[in-house]
Amino acid sequence: MSSIVEFLEKCVGKWFSQRTGHNLTDRKSVLGKGDLWMEALAADAPEAIALCQTYGVDPQSIAAGLKMRWEAITASPKKELGSSVLVALTPDAAGAGALLATPAAKQNPQPGQYNFGSDGALWLTLPIAGGSIEERIWFASDNLRFRSSTTTRSDGPNFASFCSEIRMGVAPPKAAD
Amino acid sequence: MSSIVEFLEKCVGKWFSQRTGHNLTDRKSVLGKGDLWMEALAADAPEAIALCQTYGVDPQSIAAGLKMRWEAITASPKKELGSSVLVALTPDAAGAGALLATPAAKQNPQPGQYNFGSDGALWLTLPIAGGSIEERIWFASDNLRFRSSTTTRSDGPNFASFCSEIRMGVAPPKAAD
Repeated sequence: MSSIVEFLEKCVGKWFSQRTGHNLTDRKSVLGKGDLWMEALAADAPEAIALCQTYGVDPQSIAAGLKMRWEAITASPKKELGSSVLVALTPDAAGAGALLATPAAKQNPQPGQYNFGSDGALWLTLPIAGGSIEERIWFASDNLRFRSSTTTRSDGPNFASFCSEIRMGVAPPKAAD
Repeated sequence: MSSIVEFLEKCVGKWFSQRTGHNLTDRKSVLGKGDLWMEALAADAPEAIALCQTYGVDPQSIAAGLKMRWEAITASPKKELGSSVLVALTPDAAGAGALLATPAAKQNPQPGQYNFGSDGALWLTLPIAGGSIEERIWFASDNLRFRSSTTTRSDGPNFASFCSEIRMGVAPPKAAD
């Protein structure tokens, strides 16, 4: 069985991200790329505890946390930046559990869920205003991660995205030849 | 347990496809869109039998088949077209089995494999010259299908693609409100 603690540990590092969004309503696609830093957060890290407080959740139930920061690579001199914190609470017997994420401005904090597929992929469901995002994250190798996500609102799924993320700053795995 | 026969039946229809390719080596992305027609092939269809003969496989073991045809939507007046045939052989007790696909020109026909994830997604592995393609196909709803694929060669995964496919020619599912 996959463990949320191990999975989030595997995510830690600097990643180059190629992202595509498919708008399913107007059928247009958008491309983006950027750098993504993911840092482990200990169960007693101030950011993890603060997020629990936002959600009114006992920090004793923190299993693992991540702090993310990204920077889009664009032609524009104006930098597009972002950051967020993710906290996974203690898993149940099946390895699934509640997930807390930095809520969007003015959004009522509502916990999401994580669980694992039979292939070890991590599934996240995060509530957003008027709908939810479902994300699937899986590793093709230690240094290559994929993420696909679907945004669903009252009229059904209206946006899909796919990211290919390559770990930076470590030696690539040796070819088996 | 998911059944290959039912899954391929669900695929039948005309689809609008938004496709993105991420080249993992030069880190460039390409977008494409097109129409995709998928037709069921009966176990005694001449195309299915011919494909079995190409692979030296007994046509008695055909479980289900699909005939695909696509047409890229581009600004160019020259049409980009393609077609292929897919035949799934009788599944084992776990629902997995061998998969035959129209081989590329000059390629030695070598069967692929299909199996299902715990979430009902279909996984395909198809050998290509010097490597393999792994594809995951899943339905967000009856009329919305996603496909992600990874192309791996001797030096590791070097290409990823993601398709969002919307069924055309049928009424969209009613919003649950």
